[in-house]
Amino acid sequence: MSVARVTEISSTSSVSFEDAVEKGVNRASKTLRNVVSAWIKEQRVGVENGQIQHYQVNLMVTFLLED
Amino acid sequence: MSVARVTEISSTSSVSFEDAVEKGVNRASKTLRNVVSAWIKEQRVGVENGQIQHYQVNLMVTFLLED
Amino acid sequence: MSVARVTEISSTSSVSFEDAVEKGVNRASKTLRNVVSAWIKEQRVGVENGQIQHYQVNLMVTFLLED
Amino acid sequence: MSVARVTEISSTSSVSFEDAVEKGVNRASKTLRNVVSAWIKEQRVGVENGQIQHYQVNLMVTFLLED
Amino acid sequence: MSVARVTEISSTSSVSFEDAVEKGVNRASKTLRNVVSAWIKEQRVGVENGQIQHYQVNLMVTFLLED
Amino acid sequence: MSVARVTEISSTSSVSFEDAVEKGVNRASKTLRNVVSAWIKEQRVGVENGQIQHYQVNLMVTFLLED
Amino acid sequence: MSVARVTEISSTSSVSFEDAVEKGVNRASKTLRNVVSAWIKEQRVGVENGQIQHYQVNLMVTFLLED
Amino acid sequence: MSVARVTEISSTSSVSFEDAVEKGVNRASKTLRNVVSAWIKEQRVGVENGQIQHYQVNLMVTFLLED
Amino acid sequence: MSVARVTEISSTSSVSFEDAVEKGVNRASKTLRNVVSAWIKEQRVGVENGQIQHYQVNLMVTFLLED
Amino acid sequence: MSVARVTEISSTSSVSFEDAVEKGVNRASKTLRNVVSAWIKEQRVGVENGQIQHYQVNLMVTFLLED
Amino acid sequence: MSVARVTEISSTSSVSFEDAVEKGVNRASKTLRNVVSAWIKEQRVGVENGQIQHYQVNLMVTFLLED
Amino acid sequence: MSVARVTEISSTSSVSFEDAVEKGVNRASKTLRNVVSAWIKEQRVGVENGQIQHYQVNLMVTFLLED
Repeated sequence: MSVARVTEISSTSSVSFEDAVEKGVNRASKTLRNVVSAWIKEQRVGVENGQIQHYQVNLMVTFLLED
Repeated sequence: MSVARVTEISSTSSVSFEDAVEKGVNRASKTLRNVVSAWIKEQRVGVENGQIQHYQVNLMVTFLLED
Repeated sequence: MSVARVTEISSTSSVSFEDAVEKGVNRASKTLRNVVSAWIKEQRVGVENGQIQHYQVNLMVTFLLED
Repeated sequence: MSVARVTEISSTSSVSFEDAVEKGVNRASKTLRNVVSAWIKEQRVGVENGQIQHYQVNLMVTFLLED
Repeated sequence: MSVARVTEISSTSSVSFEDAVEKGVNRASKTLRNVVSAWIKEQRVGVENGQIQHYQVNLMVTFLLED
Repeated sequence: MSVARVTEISSTSSVSFEDAVEKGVNRASKTLRNVVSAWIKEQRVGVENGQIQHYQVNLMVTFLLED
Repeated sequence: MSVARVTEISSTSSVSFEDAVEKGVNRASKTLRNVVSAWIKEQRVGVENGQIQHYQVNLMVTFLLED
Repeated sequence: MSVARVTEISSTSSVSFEDAVEKGVNRASKTLRNVVSAWIKEQRVGVENGQIQHYQVNLMVTFLLED
Repeated sequence: MSVARVTEISSTSSVSFEDAVEKGVNRASKTLRNVVSAWIKEQRVGVENGQIQHYQVNLMVTFLLED
Repeated sequence: MSVARVTEISSTSSVSFEDAVEKGVNRASKTLRNVVSAWIKEQRVGVENGQIQHYQVNLMVTFLLED
Repeated sequence: MSVARVTEISSTSSVSFEDAVEKGVNRASKTLRNVVSAWIKEQRVGVENGQIQHYQVNLMVTFLLED
Repeated sequence: MSVARVTEISSTSSVSFEDAVEKGVNRASKTLRNVVSAWIKEQRVGVENGQIQHYQVNLMVTFLLED
């Protein structure tokens, strides 16, 4: 049956956490084939002068290995 | 004083994490009376062809027991 | 080199999780100088009559100490 | 051989943590048959004007299923 | 989209851990419709006179809720 | 909506764990306004000559920030 | 400087959690010299017919080694 | 001295958990040289109609890097 | 009432995880009286040339102390 | 008996982890009286061009409160 | 904005933990471009005849991905 | 195949964390034969007048059992 790998990706966005998740998934899919899911491991924001500058997520990305 | 139960719900949405939380809370409230809170235990996305297909949350839902 | 402190903030919003993060960061910056980041420790919603009433986040806020 | 279920109960008392445990176990036993044990998952107090108002415990309650 | 519940089952077998998992899944399916997966949370053995008497597993069982 | 802070207090008593919780909450309320709850993070006893000398609790104390 | 060992003790009492802690510390001190502290790792109750039968604590007991 | 990498593999089998471990180790060894160990991070079963369909393990696989 | 100790055993087998558990329990029972249970803390395999060489388990073994 | 507070400090050094611990403890002692201990929560290094630029530690610092 | 990967490295040194961290970071930088940080996940020593033979660290190494 | 035990040692040094690890390993080897490794579970410093007085490590020490 199937075998997959899981790798950790850290992605940032100036817009929102969900944009960071989407960017991370898109970027991962450029080099990894068959990404099937991503689990949100951590969420963090960067702050400057009391304002949020970026949203960061760490994702555990699962992609299928071919035979 | 009061006694409550806590149960785990897994809910998915094609729109966003917050939509998944809302759907899970609404669905839980259809069968469980007096839901008072939900704690986000896990967040995950399903992916196909490099695009997010759905947002999934696992919720620990607390509801009050009546006497 | 630099020394920073990390403190836990709990913040609620009637709008969304990200609004709660932003409110917490803004409020923290009113009394703490040089806030540089915040890590999302917990997310929770309050519920009444099957509807979400507020979004709550617990943040670990890091701010630099001056010499 | 035997199969059991484990469910989370949150119980509060104005007296003590052990009273909260006892109330939670008693209440659980009213609707669940054959409760055999409870594991203390969390303990918390509610406070007002510097005084403890109630003691809260979250219990993982195990009860045997009949065949 | 879909909503599921997750519940904890403790199951024992005199034969092996996998037999305990199977018995737990079978028993859960008798009262819960649409069981889709089970995550092994804990494994334990009971011992008497230096010999294993039974194998116990605690399972987090996920089953789909119907609309 | 509201913003709160969470801070860790370690408190000891020669009498009991609950006395240690109470002393910690009372002491915290002398310098922190609007303490609303405390979560028991750790419990420990100090021992001498086989007898318990003191009960120690570590509390995560939540107090509301004013605007 | 000093070296100590840490060992896990499980102790039960029909009276209360603190009685179980005390019994565990006393019993440990009969065979281990120089017990200095014990950390409460777990608390659990045994139940029969809806009533608590015993209180169980698991303790991490620290005792000094002599040179 | 030596440097190794650790990577997460998810592997499924229709037979047993140990078959899933073996398949995962074999598959990993096809692309990674010098696999020396694997730590079982998670175990899960997929279920359909009350019957186990597959056994899934997540492995943290360690392999030596050459100079 | 009863007092028990809990100690960690690491056991390996060339056959299977369950054989490793059994060997560990048997070996523990040779020096420790009244072993009553063992909790599986970790599972790991040793690998050479892409083949599993041994199965290792770490067990938390509980045994009753006599008075 | 005594009441203490625990606060998180993040400290960096270009020299070593122990230098970072020492700097963090020294800096904390400038504003907090009666620091009695610090627990190492995290260790991390910053890297540039393959060389370590700084050592960072996160410390949970305990200091006694006066009456 | 930026996307990074996080990978686990295990590194050993006969000298010290910090030498092991440095060797791991150097080795990682030979095959991975743009390493920016490493988080110490585990520390362990190998022992023979009562003497430490090597220091081992497991590092979570973060490196930036190029577009 | 082989069976080992794992026991927790707490060791302090006035010099450094690595000296504390070495002292703990040496002391453990005086009473336990065949110590093969030690895993660093916790690191802590004791402080007086703003200066570090001692370095403390808690080690999980593994030693082989003979047949």
